[in-house]
Amino acid sequence: MTYLDGYETGPVDPDAAEKSIRPDTILISVMFANNEIGTIEPVAEIGAIAKKHGVLFHTDAVQAFGQIPIDVDAMHIDLLSASAHKCNGPKGVGFLYIRSGITVPSFLHGGAQERRHRAGTENVPAIAGFHAAVLLAKERMDEKSRQETALRDHLIQRIEEEIPYCKLNGHREMRLPGNVNFTFRFVESESVVLLLDREGICASGGSACTTGETDPSHVLMAIGCSEEEAKGSLRLSLSEDNTMEEMDVTVQKLKSVLEKLRSTSREYEIFCRKNGR
Amino acid sequence: MTYLDGYETGPVDPDAAEKSIRPDTILISVMFANNEIGTIEPVAEIGAIAKKHGVLFHTDAVQAFGQIPIDVDAMHIDLLSASAHKCNGPKGVGFLYIRSGITVPSFLHGGAQERRHRAGTENVPAIAGFHAAVLLAKERMDEKSRQETALRDHLIQRIEEEIPYCKLNGHREMRLPGNVNFTFRFVESESVVLLLDREGICASGGSACTTGETDPSHVLMAIGCSEEEAKGSLRLSLSEDNTMEEMDVTVQKLKSVLEKLRSTSREYEIFCRKNGR
Repeated sequence: MTYLDGYETGPVDPDAAEKSIRPDTILISVMFANNEIGTIEPVAEIGAIAKKHGVLFHTDAVQAFGQIPIDVDAMHIDLLSASAHKCNGPKGVGFLYIRSGITVPSFLHGGAQERRHRAGTENVPAIAGFHAAVLLAKERMDEKSRQETALRDHLIQRIEEEIPYCKLNGHREMRLPGNVNFTFRFVESESVVLLLDREGICASGGSACTTGETDPSHVLMAIGCSEEEAKGSLRLSLSEDNTMEEMDVTVQKLKSVLEKLRSTSREYEIFCRKNGR
Repeated sequence: MTYLDGYETGPVDPDAAEKSIRPDTILISVMFANNEIGTIEPVAEIGAIAKKHGVLFHTDAVQAFGQIPIDVDAMHIDLLSASAHKCNGPKGVGFLYIRSGITVPSFLHGGAQERRHRAGTENVPAIAGFHAAVLLAKERMDEKSRQETALRDHLIQRIEEEIPYCKLNGHREMRLPGNVNFTFRFVESESVVLLLDREGICASGGSACTTGETDPSHVLMAIGCSEEEAKGSLRLSLSEDNTMEEMDVTVQKLKSVLEKLRSTSREYEIFCRKNGR
Protein backbone atom coordinates (compact mmCIF):
# COMPACT_ATOMS: atom_id res chain seq x y z
CA MET A 1 0.00 0.00 0.00
CA THR A 2 1.29 3.44 -0.94
CA TYR A 3 -0.01 6.53 0.87
CA LEU A 4 -0.23 9.61 -1.36
CA ASP A 5 0.80 13.00 0.01
CA GLY A 6 -1.43 16.03 -0.16
CA TYR A 7 -0.47 19.59 -1.13
CA GLU A 8 -0.32 22.21 1.55
CA THR A 9 -3.97 23.07 0.86
CA GLY A 10 -5.01 19.44 1.02
CA PRO A 11 -5.68 17.78 -2.31
CA VAL A 12 -3.77 14.81 -3.65
CA ASP A 13 -1.61 15.53 -6.69
CA PRO A 14 -2.99 13.55 -9.67
CA ASP A 15 0.49 13.33 -11.22
CA ALA A 16 1.88 11.86 -8.02
CA ALA A 17 -1.03 9.42 -7.95
CA GLU A 18 -0.22 8.33 -11.51
CA LYS A 19 3.48 7.93 -10.79
CA SER A 20 2.77 5.81 -7.75
CA ILE A 21 0.92 3.15 -9.76
CA ARG A 22 2.92 -0.08 -9.75
CA PRO A 23 2.36 -3.15 -11.94
CA ASP A 24 0.60 -4.83 -9.01
CA THR A 25 -1.62 -1.86 -8.11
CA ILE A 26 -5.26 -2.91 -8.18
CA LEU A 27 -7.00 -0.02 -6.46
CA ILE A 28 -6.71 3.73 -5.91
CA SER A 29 -8.82 5.08 -3.07
CA VAL A 30 -9.23 8.81 -2.44
CA MET A 31 -11.58 10.70 -0.16
CA PHE A 32 -13.99 12.77 -2.22
CA ALA A 33 -13.78 15.57 0.31
CA ASN A 34 -11.88 15.70 3.57
CA ASN A 35 -13.86 15.61 6.80
CA GLU A 36 -11.58 17.97 8.71
CA ILE A 37 -10.39 20.60 6.25
CA GLY A 38 -13.17 20.31 3.67
CA THR A 39 -10.82 20.08 0.71
CA ILE A 40 -12.44 18.54 -2.37
CA GLU A 41 -10.07 16.15 -4.11
CA PRO A 42 -9.50 16.10 -7.89
CA VAL A 43 -11.62 12.97 -8.13
CA ALA A 44 -12.37 13.20 -11.86
CA GLU A 45 -8.67 13.52 -12.75
CA ILE A 46 -7.64 10.65 -10.51
CA GLY A 47 -10.55 8.58 -11.83
CA ALA A 48 -9.34 9.16 -15.40
CA ILE A 49 -5.83 8.07 -14.41
CA ALA A 50 -7.16 4.92 -12.74
CA LYS A 51 -9.21 4.08 -15.82
CA LYS A 52 -6.24 4.69 -18.14
CA HIS A 53 -4.13 2.24 -16.12
CA GLY A 54 -6.89 -0.35 -15.62
CA VAL A 55 -6.89 0.16 -11.87
CA LEU A 56 -10.11 0.21 -9.82
CA PHE A 57 -11.05 3.55 -8.33
CA HIS A 58 -12.78 3.91 -4.96
CA THR A 59 -13.79 7.13 -3.30
CA ASP A 60 -14.93 7.68 0.27
CA ALA A 61 -17.64 10.22 -0.48
CA VAL A 62 -19.16 10.26 3.00
CA GLN A 63 -18.52 14.00 3.38
CA ALA A 64 -19.45 14.90 -0.18
CA PHE A 65 -22.53 12.80 -0.93
CA GLY A 66 -25.63 14.97 -0.88
CA GLN A 67 -23.51 18.14 -0.59
CA ILE A 68 -21.88 18.52 -4.00
CA PRO A 69 -22.57 16.93 -7.41
CA ILE A 70 -21.08 13.49 -8.01
CA ASP A 71 -21.16 11.69 -11.36
CA VAL A 72 -19.79 8.16 -11.07
CA ASP A 73 -19.58 7.78 -14.86
CA ALA A 74 -17.94 11.10 -15.72
CA MET A 75 -15.55 10.71 -12.77
CA HIS A 76 -14.77 7.04 -13.53
CA ILE A 77 -15.72 5.99 -10.02
CA ASP A 78 -15.95 2.21 -9.63
CA LEU A 79 -16.74 2.11 -5.92
CA LEU A 80 -18.20 4.83 -3.75
CA SER A 81 -18.97 4.88 -0.02
CA ALA A 82 -21.64 7.17 1.44
CA SER A 83 -23.38 7.56 4.78
CA ALA A 84 -26.87 8.86 5.58
CA HIS A 85 -26.04 10.89 8.67
CA LYS A 86 -23.90 13.32 6.68
CA CYS A 87 -26.82 14.44 4.52
CA ASN A 88 -29.52 14.76 7.18
CA GLY A 89 -30.50 11.09 7.03
CA PRO A 90 -30.59 8.76 10.05
CA LYS A 91 -27.48 7.41 11.73
CA GLY A 92 -26.52 3.78 11.21
CA VAL A 93 -27.03 3.41 7.47
CA GLY A 94 -24.86 3.96 4.42
CA PHE A 95 -24.11 2.35 1.09
CA LEU A 96 -21.30 1.13 -1.08
CA TYR A 97 -21.88 1.81 -4.77
CA ILE A 98 -20.37 -1.01 -6.83
CA ARG A 99 -20.11 -0.46 -10.58
CA SER A 100 -21.91 -3.17 -12.51
CA GLY A 101 -19.51 -5.96 -13.41
CA ILE A 102 -17.26 -5.56 -10.37
CA THR A 103 -17.24 -8.40 -7.87
CA VAL A 104 -16.63 -7.50 -4.26
CA PRO A 105 -16.12 -10.22 -1.64
CA SER A 106 -18.52 -10.56 1.28
CA PHE A 107 -17.91 -8.08 4.04
CA LEU A 108 -19.99 -9.76 6.75
CA HIS A 109 -20.47 -13.52 6.54
CA GLY A 110 -23.57 -15.37 7.68
CA GLY A 111 -27.05 -14.74 6.31
CA ALA A 112 -27.79 -14.18 2.64
CA GLN A 113 -28.85 -10.55 3.04
CA GLU A 114 -27.74 -7.86 0.55
CA ARG A 115 -26.77 -10.42 -2.09
CA ARG A 116 -24.57 -12.20 0.46
CA HIS A 117 -22.33 -9.14 0.84
CA ARG A 118 -23.43 -8.07 4.30
CA ALA A 119 -25.13 -10.57 6.59
CA GLY A 120 -27.62 -9.34 9.15
CA THR A 121 -31.20 -8.12 9.29
CA GLU A 122 -31.50 -5.02 7.11
CA ASN A 123 -32.34 -1.79 8.91
CA VAL A 124 -35.38 -1.03 6.74
CA PRO A 125 -36.59 2.10 8.60
CA ALA A 126 -33.11 3.65 8.33
CA ILE A 127 -32.83 2.69 4.64
CA ALA A 128 -36.20 4.38 3.97
CA GLY A 129 -35.05 7.44 5.92
CA PHE A 130 -31.83 7.59 3.92
CA HIS A 131 -33.86 7.42 0.71
CA ALA A 132 -36.01 10.36 1.83
CA ALA A 133 -32.91 12.34 2.83
CA VAL A 134 -31.28 11.72 -0.55
CA LEU A 135 -34.36 12.92 -2.43
CA LEU A 136 -34.40 16.12 -0.34
CA ALA A 137 -30.65 16.62 -0.66
CA LYS A 138 -30.83 16.29 -4.44
CA GLU A 139 -33.67 18.77 -4.67
CA ARG A 140 -31.97 21.31 -2.38
CA MET A 141 -28.33 20.81 -3.38
CA ASP A 142 -27.80 23.87 -5.60
CA GLU A 143 -29.60 26.28 -3.33
CA LYS A 144 -28.07 24.80 -0.17
CA SER A 145 -24.60 24.95 -1.66
CA ARG A 146 -25.08 28.60 -2.67
CA GLN A 147 -26.30 29.57 0.77
CA GLU A 148 -23.62 27.68 2.67
CA THR A 149 -20.84 28.99 0.42
CA ALA A 150 -21.96 32.57 1.08
CA LEU A 151 -22.02 31.94 4.85
CA ARG A 152 -18.67 30.16 4.71
CA ASP A 153 -16.88 32.83 2.73
CA HIS A 154 -18.29 35.57 4.93
CA LEU A 155 -17.11 33.75 8.06
CA ILE A 156 -13.67 33.07 6.60
CA GLN A 157 -13.28 36.68 5.45
CA ARG A 158 -14.24 38.17 8.81
CA ILE A 159 -11.99 35.78 10.76
CA GLU A 160 -9.03 36.53 8.50
CA GLU A 161 -9.60 40.28 8.68
CA GLU A 162 -10.34 40.57 12.37
CA ILE A 163 -8.50 37.80 14.20
CA PRO A 164 -4.70 37.96 14.25
CA TYR A 165 -2.39 34.90 14.00
CA CYS A 166 -4.84 32.64 12.22
CA LYS A 167 -4.48 30.47 9.13
CA LEU A 168 -7.19 28.90 6.99
CA ASN A 169 -6.61 25.15 6.67
CA GLY A 170 -7.52 23.47 3.39
CA HIS A 171 -8.23 24.82 -0.08
CA ARG A 172 -9.99 28.17 -0.37
CA GLU A 173 -12.21 27.34 -3.37
CA MET A 174 -12.07 23.54 -3.74
CA ARG A 175 -13.82 23.22 -0.42
CA LEU A 176 -17.06 21.80 0.94
CA PRO A 177 -19.64 24.60 1.15
CA GLY A 178 -20.20 24.02 4.87
CA ASN A 179 -16.60 23.64 6.07
CA VAL A 180 -14.48 26.23 7.86
CA ASN A 181 -11.21 25.14 9.50
CA PHE A 182 -8.72 27.56 11.01
CA THR A 183 -5.54 27.28 13.02
CA PHE A 184 -5.32 29.87 15.76
CA ARG A 185 -1.86 30.31 17.23
CA PHE A 186 -1.23 30.44 20.98
CA VAL A 187 -4.33 28.45 21.92
CA GLU A 188 -5.36 24.80 22.18
CA SER A 189 -8.56 24.05 20.31
CA GLU A 190 -9.91 21.99 23.22
CA SER A 191 -10.19 25.15 25.33
CA VAL A 192 -11.67 27.12 22.44
CA VAL A 193 -14.33 24.43 21.90
CA LEU A 194 -15.26 24.45 25.61
CA LEU A 195 -15.56 28.22 25.84
CA LEU A 196 -17.51 28.49 22.56
CA ASP A 197 -19.84 25.76 23.80
CA ARG A 198 -20.71 27.93 26.81
CA GLU A 199 -21.71 30.63 24.35
CA GLY A 200 -23.99 28.24 22.48
CA ILE A 201 -21.63 27.64 19.57
CA CYS A 202 -20.75 24.03 18.72
CA ALA A 203 -17.32 23.66 17.20
CA SER A 204 -14.87 20.80 16.85
CA GLY A 205 -11.17 20.48 17.50
CA GLY A 206 -10.65 17.34 15.46
CA SER A 207 -12.69 14.54 13.97
CA ALA A 208 -15.18 12.29 15.77
CA CYS A 209 -12.98 9.34 14.76
CA THR A 210 -10.23 10.53 17.07
CA THR A 211 -12.29 11.74 20.03
CA GLY A 212 -10.42 11.15 23.22
CA GLU A 213 -7.05 10.99 21.50
CA THR A 214 -4.46 13.58 22.35
CA ASP A 215 -2.41 13.21 19.17
CA PRO A 216 -2.66 16.13 16.75
CA SER A 217 -4.74 15.64 13.60
CA HIS A 218 -2.93 13.46 11.05
CA VAL A 219 -4.73 15.40 8.31
CA LEU A 220 -3.35 18.74 9.44
CA MET A 221 0.13 17.26 9.96
CA ALA A 222 -0.02 15.83 6.42
CA ILE A 223 -0.69 19.26 4.92
CA GLY A 224 2.28 20.75 6.70
CA CYS A 225 0.94 22.04 10.01
CA SER A 226 3.29 21.88 12.97
CA GLU A 227 2.10 19.93 16.00
CA GLU A 228 1.35 23.21 17.75
CA GLU A 229 -0.67 24.48 14.77
CA ALA A 230 -2.59 21.22 14.51
CA LYS A 231 -3.52 21.37 18.19
CA GLY A 232 -4.81 24.92 17.75
CA SER A 233 -7.12 24.14 14.84
CA LEU A 234 -10.85 24.62 14.99
CA ARG A 235 -13.58 23.32 12.68
CA LEU A 236 -16.87 25.13 12.24
CA SER A 237 -19.49 23.25 10.19
CA LEU A 238 -22.28 25.26 8.59
CA SER A 239 -25.67 24.30 7.24
CA GLU A 240 -28.24 26.07 5.14
CA ASP A 241 -30.21 26.63 8.32
CA ASN A 242 -27.53 29.00 9.62
CA THR A 243 -27.78 32.75 9.07
CA MET A 244 -25.38 35.61 8.34
CA GLU A 245 -26.22 36.99 11.79
CA GLU A 246 -25.03 33.73 13.33
CA MET A 247 -21.76 34.05 11.40
CA ASP A 248 -21.30 37.55 12.82
CA VAL A 249 -22.10 36.41 16.36
CA THR A 250 -19.63 33.52 15.93
CA VAL A 251 -16.87 35.93 14.93
CA GLN A 252 -17.59 38.14 17.94
CA LYS A 253 -17.64 35.22 20.38
CA LEU A 254 -14.56 33.67 18.81
CA LYS A 255 -12.67 36.95 19.12
CA SER A 256 -13.41 37.29 22.80
CA VAL A 257 -12.67 33.61 23.53
CA LEU A 258 -9.33 33.82 21.72
CA GLU A 259 -8.40 37.09 23.43
CA LYS A 260 -9.19 35.57 26.80
CA LEU A 261 -7.18 32.40 26.16
CA ARG A 262 -4.24 34.20 24.57
CA SER A 263 -4.07 36.62 27.49
CA THR A 264 -3.19 33.67 29.72
CA SER A 265 -0.75 32.07 27.25
CA ARG A 266 2.91 32.12 28.17
CA GLU A 267 3.87 31.60 24.50
CA TYR A 268 1.74 34.55 23.47
CA GLU A 269 3.34 36.73 26.13
CA ILE A 270 6.85 35.78 24.98
CA PHE A 271 5.86 36.32 21.35
CA CYS A 272 4.43 39.78 22.08
CA ARG A 273 7.42 40.83 24.11
CA LYS A 274 9.79 39.63 21.38
CA ASN A 275 7.85 41.47 18.72
CA GLY A 276 7.38 44.58 20.83
CA ARG A 277 3.57 44.42 21.06
CA MET B 1 -13.69 -25.95 13.17
CA THR B 2 -15.97 -28.74 14.39
CA TYR B 3 -19.74 -28.45 13.95
CA LEU B 4 -21.72 -30.04 16.77
CA ASP B 5 -24.84 -32.04 15.98
CA GLY B 6 -28.17 -31.38 17.63
CA TYR B 7 -30.64 -33.90 19.00
CA GLU B 8 -33.85 -34.51 17.15
CA THR B 9 -35.51 -31.82 19.28
CA GLY B 10 -32.73 -29.36 18.64
CA PRO B 11 -30.28 -28.90 21.48
CA VAL B 12 -26.60 -29.65 21.34
CA ASP B 13 -25.45 -32.56 23.50
CA PRO B 14 -23.09 -31.23 26.20
CA ASP B 15 -21.22 -34.57 26.31
CA ALA B 16 -20.63 -34.42 22.58
CA ALA B 17 -19.45 -30.84 22.97
CA GLU B 18 -16.97 -31.92 25.64
CA LYS B 19 -15.68 -34.84 23.58
CA SER B 20 -15.14 -32.60 20.57
CA ILE B 21 -12.68 -30.36 22.42
CA ARG B 22 -9.21 -30.77 20.94
CA PRO B 23 -5.91 -29.52 22.40
CA ASP B 24 -6.04 -26.58 19.96
CA THR B 25 -9.67 -25.66 20.63
CA ILE B 26 -9.90 -22.03 21.73
CA LEU B 27 -13.61 -21.30 21.49
CA ILE B 28 -17.00 -22.98 21.78
CA SER B 29 -19.88 -21.03 20.28
CA VAL B 30 -23.49 -22.07 20.74
CA MET B 31 -26.72 -20.25 19.97
CA PHE B 32 -28.58 -19.49 23.18
CA ALA B 33 -31.89 -20.25 21.48
CA ASN B 34 -32.54 -21.20 17.89
CA ASN B 35 -34.26 -18.64 15.65
CA GLU B 36 -36.29 -21.19 13.69
CA ILE B 37 -37.35 -23.90 16.10
CA GLY B 38 -37.03 -21.93 19.35
CA THR B 39 -35.03 -24.61 21.15
CA ILE B 40 -33.10 -23.29 24.13
CA GLU B 41 -29.61 -24.78 24.29
CA PRO B 42 -28.04 -26.17 27.50
CA VAL B 43 -25.89 -23.04 27.73
CA ALA B 44 -25.00 -23.36 31.42
CA GLU B 45 -23.78 -26.95 30.97
CA ILE B 46 -21.72 -26.13 27.90
CA GLY B 47 -20.37 -23.02 29.64
CA ALA B 48 -19.21 -25.16 32.58
CA ILE B 49 -17.50 -27.58 30.18
CA ALA B 50 -15.76 -24.70 28.40
CA LYS B 51 -14.57 -23.28 31.71
CA LYS B 52 -13.34 -26.68 32.89
CA HIS B 53 -11.23 -27.05 29.75
CA GLY B 54 -10.01 -23.43 29.66
CA VAL B 55 -11.79 -22.75 26.38
CA LEU B 56 -13.59 -19.45 25.69
CA PHE B 57 -17.37 -19.67 25.47
CA HIS B 58 -19.43 -17.51 23.12
CA THR B 59 -23.18 -17.57 22.74
CA ASP B 60 -25.30 -15.95 20.04
CA ALA B 61 -28.13 -14.81 22.30
CA VAL B 62 -29.90 -12.67 19.70
CA GLN B 63 -33.11 -14.70 20.00
CA ALA B 64 -32.92 -15.10 23.78
CA PHE B 65 -31.79 -11.69 25.06
CA GLY B 66 -34.70 -9.86 26.63
CA GLN B 67 -36.92 -12.98 26.37
CA ILE B 68 -35.50 -15.36 28.96
CA PRO B 69 -33.12 -14.91 31.91
CA ILE B 70 -29.40 -14.91 31.10
CA ASP B 71 -26.67 -14.89 33.73
CA VAL B 72 -23.23 -14.55 32.15
CA ASP B 73 -21.47 -15.46 35.41
CA ALA B 74 -23.55 -18.50 36.41
CA MET B 75 -23.50 -19.74 32.80
CA HIS B 76 -19.76 -19.09 32.33
CA ILE B 77 -20.39 -16.99 29.24
CA ASP B 78 -17.28 -15.11 28.08
CA LEU B 79 -18.76 -13.51 24.97
CA LEU B 80 -22.41 -12.85 24.17
CA SER B 81 -24.02 -11.30 21.10
CA ALA B 82 -27.40 -9.58 21.25
CA SER B 83 -29.51 -7.42 18.96
CA ALA B 84 -32.04 -4.70 19.78
CA HIS B 85 -34.65 -5.54 17.18
CA LYS B 86 -35.40 -8.91 18.79
CA CYS B 87 -36.55 -7.32 22.05
CA ASN B 88 -38.64 -4.45 20.68
CA GLY B 89 -35.67 -2.12 20.28
CA PRO B 90 -34.74 -0.34 17.05
CA LYS B 91 -33.17 -2.11 14.09
CA GLY B 92 -29.50 -1.56 13.36
CA VAL B 93 -28.00 -1.85 16.83
CA GLY B 94 -26.70 -4.70 18.95
CA PHE B 95 -23.85 -5.47 21.30
CA LEU B 96 -21.12 -7.96 21.99
CA TYR B 97 -20.57 -8.59 25.69
CA ILE B 98 -16.89 -9.24 26.36
CA ARG B 99 -15.94 -10.57 29.77
CA SER B 100 -13.46 -8.32 31.52
CA GLY B 101 -9.92 -9.48 30.80
CA ILE B 102 -10.62 -10.91 27.35
CA THR B 103 -9.01 -9.15 24.42
CA VAL B 104 -10.90 -9.22 21.15
CA PRO B 105 -9.29 -7.91 17.95
CA SER B 106 -10.79 -4.97 16.07
CA PHE B 107 -13.77 -5.88 13.95
CA LEU B 108 -13.94 -2.71 11.85
CA HIS B 109 -10.72 -0.79 11.33
CA GLY B 110 -10.48 2.98 10.94
CA GLY B 111 -11.68 5.44 13.57
CA ALA B 112 -11.07 4.98 17.28
CA GLN B 113 -14.74 4.51 18.17
CA GLU B 114 -15.85 1.84 20.66
CA ARG B 115 -12.36 1.42 22.10
CA ARG B 116 -11.01 0.82 18.58
CA HIS B 117 -13.13 -2.33 18.17
CA ARG B 118 -15.64 -0.98 15.68
CA ALA B 119 -14.81 2.10 13.63
CA GLY B 120 -17.61 4.38 12.49
CA THR B 121 -19.87 7.05 13.93
CA GLU B 122 -21.90 5.51 16.75
CA ASN B 123 -25.65 5.32 16.20
CA VAL B 124 -26.51 7.15 19.42
CA PRO B 125 -30.31 7.36 18.90
CA ALA B 126 -30.45 3.60 18.29
CA ILE B 127 -28.21 2.88 21.29
CA ALA B 128 -30.53 4.97 23.49
CA GLY B 129 -33.54 3.15 22.05
CA PHE B 130 -31.93 -0.22 22.74
CA HIS B 131 -31.29 0.87 26.33
CA ALA B 132 -34.95 1.81 26.77
CA ALA B 133 -36.06 -1.50 25.24
CA VAL B 134 -33.78 -3.48 27.57
CA LEU B 135 -35.16 -1.71 30.65
CA LEU B 136 -38.72 -2.50 29.55
CA ALA B 137 -37.83 -6.09 28.62
CA LYS B 138 -36.24 -6.68 32.02
CA GLU B 139 -39.25 -5.27 33.83
CA ARG B 140 -41.74 -7.27 31.75
CA MET B 141 -39.79 -10.50 31.25
CA ASP B 142 -41.51 -12.77 33.80
CA GLU B 143 -45.02 -11.64 32.96
CA LYS B 144 -44.35 -11.62 29.20
CA SER B 145 -42.85 -15.10 29.35
CA ARG B 146 -45.83 -16.44 31.31
CA GLN B 147 -48.31 -14.93 28.86
CA GLU B 148 -46.48 -16.07 25.74
CA THR B 149 -45.94 -19.57 27.10
CA ALA B 150 -49.68 -19.92 27.75
CA LEU B 151 -50.50 -18.71 24.22
CA ARG B 152 -47.81 -20.94 22.72
CA ASP B 153 -48.88 -24.10 24.52
CA HIS B 154 -52.54 -23.48 23.68
CA LEU B 155 -51.69 -23.01 20.01
CA ILE B 156 -49.46 -26.11 19.94
CA GLN B 157 -52.10 -28.22 21.70
CA ARG B 158 -54.93 -27.18 19.38
CA ILE B 159 -52.81 -27.71 16.25
CA GLU B 160 -51.71 -31.17 17.41
CA GLU B 161 -55.25 -32.16 18.35
CA GLU B 162 -57.08 -30.76 15.34
CA ILE B 163 -54.72 -30.80 12.37
CA PRO B 164 -53.65 -34.18 11.01
CA TYR B 165 -50.17 -35.02 9.71
CA CYS B 166 -48.31 -32.36 11.63
CA LYS B 167 -45.16 -32.48 13.75
CA LEU B 168 -43.88 -29.97 16.28
CA ASN B 169 -40.28 -29.01 15.47
CA GLY B 170 -37.92 -28.30 18.37
CA HIS B 171 -38.10 -29.06 22.06
CA ARG B 172 -41.49 -28.97 23.75
CA GLU B 173 -40.40 -27.38 27.04
CA MET B 174 -36.87 -26.02 26.43
CA ARG B 175 -38.35 -23.57 23.99
CA LEU B 176 -38.60 -19.78 23.56
CA PRO B 177 -41.96 -18.63 24.97
CA GLY B 178 -42.96 -17.03 21.65
CA ASN B 179 -41.92 -19.76 19.21
CA VAL B 180 -44.16 -22.27 17.45
CA ASN B 181 -42.76 -24.29 14.55
CA PHE B 182 -44.63 -27.13 12.87
CA THR B 183 -44.09 -29.33 9.87
CA PHE B 184 -47.29 -29.97 7.92
CA ARG B 185 -47.11 -32.85 5.48
CA PHE B 186 -48.37 -32.56 1.90
CA VAL B 187 -47.94 -28.79 1.66
CA GLU B 188 -45.15 -26.30 0.92
CA SER B 189 -44.84 -23.62 3.57
CA GLU B 190 -44.49 -20.89 0.92
CA SER B 191 -48.12 -21.45 -0.12
CA VAL B 192 -49.29 -21.65 3.49
CA VAL B 193 -47.57 -18.32 4.28
CA LEU B 194 -49.20 -16.64 1.27
CA LEU B 195 -52.69 -17.87 2.08
CA LEU B 196 -52.38 -17.04 5.79
CA ASP B 197 -51.15 -13.58 4.84
CA ARG B 198 -54.42 -13.00 2.95
CA GLU B 199 -56.23 -13.82 6.19
CA GLY B 200 -54.18 -11.26 8.11
CA ILE B 201 -51.86 -13.79 9.75
CA CYS B 202 -48.11 -13.26 9.34
CA ALA B 203 -46.16 -16.50 9.40
CA SER B 204 -42.74 -17.54 8.16
CA GLY B 205 -41.52 -20.52 6.18
CA GLY B 206 -37.87 -20.14 7.09
CA SER B 207 -35.52 -17.54 8.50
CA ALA B 208 -34.97 -13.99 7.21
CA CYS B 209 -31.34 -14.95 6.65
CA THR B 210 -32.33 -17.28 3.85
CA THR B 211 -35.12 -15.28 2.22
CA GLY B 212 -35.15 -15.94 -1.49
CA GLU B 213 -33.34 -19.24 -1.15
CA THR B 214 -35.11 -22.39 -2.22
CA ASP B 215 -32.97 -24.78 -0.18
CA PRO B 216 -34.74 -26.36 2.79
CA SER B 217 -33.84 -25.07 6.26
CA HIS B 218 -30.43 -26.37 7.38
CA VAL B 219 -31.72 -26.21 10.97
CA LEU B 220 -34.62 -28.56 10.26
CA MET B 221 -32.41 -30.88 8.20
CA ALA B 222 -29.93 -30.99 11.11
CA ILE B 223 -32.62 -32.18 13.53
CA GLY B 224 -33.62 -35.00 11.20
CA CYS B 225 -36.38 -33.57 9.00
CA SER B 226 -36.54 -34.88 5.45
CA GLU B 227 -36.28 -32.30 2.67
CA GLU B 228 -40.04 -32.59 2.16
CA GLU B 229 -40.73 -32.06 5.87
CA ALA B 230 -38.38 -29.08 6.01
CA LYS B 231 -40.13 -27.43 3.07
CA GLY B 232 -43.49 -27.87 4.76
CA SER B 233 -42.48 -26.22 8.01
CA LEU B 234 -44.14 -23.08 9.33
CA ARG B 235 -43.03 -20.71 12.06
CA LEU B 236 -45.51 -18.67 14.08
CA SER B 237 -43.97 -16.06 16.41
CA LEU B 238 -46.04 -14.82 19.32
CA SER B 239 -45.80 -11.78 21.51
CA GLU B 240 -47.41 -10.75 24.77
CA ASP B 241 -49.68 -8.49 22.72
CA ASN B 242 -51.37 -11.53 21.17
CA THR B 243 -54.53 -12.97 22.67
CA MET B 244 -56.04 -16.44 23.14
CA GLU B 245 -58.76 -15.46 20.66
CA GLU B 246 -56.05 -14.79 18.05
CA MET B 247 -54.61 -18.26 18.73
CA ASP B 248 -58.05 -19.77 18.11
CA VAL B 249 -58.56 -17.74 14.93
CA THR B 250 -55.11 -18.83 13.76
CA VAL B 251 -55.98 -22.51 14.24
CA GLN B 252 -59.25 -22.05 12.31
CA LYS B 253 -57.56 -20.23 9.41
CA LEU B 254 -54.66 -22.66 9.37
CA LYS B 255 -57.06 -25.63 9.22
CA SER B 256 -58.92 -24.24 6.22
CA VAL B 257 -55.71 -23.20 4.42
CA LEU B 258 -54.18 -26.65 4.91
CA GLU B 259 -57.38 -28.42 3.82
CA LYS B 260 -57.46 -26.28 0.69
CA LEU B 261 -53.83 -26.89 -0.19
CA ARG B 262 -53.91 -30.60 0.63
CA SER B 263 -57.03 -31.07 -1.49
CA THR B 264 -54.96 -30.09 -4.55
CA SER B 265 -51.92 -32.17 -3.56
CA ARG B 266 -51.14 -35.21 -5.69
CA GLU B 267 -49.06 -36.70 -2.83
CA TYR B 268 -51.95 -36.29 -0.43
CA GLU B 269 -54.32 -37.96 -2.87
CA ILE B 270 -52.00 -40.93 -3.29
CA PHE B 271 -51.48 -41.14 0.47
CA CYS B 272 -55.23 -41.13 1.14
CA ARG B 273 -55.95 -43.73 -1.51
CA LYS B 274 -53.18 -45.98 -0.15
CA ASN B 275 -54.48 -45.64 3.39
CA GLY B 276 -58.12 -46.01 2.40
CA ARG B 277 -59.27 -42.52 3.48
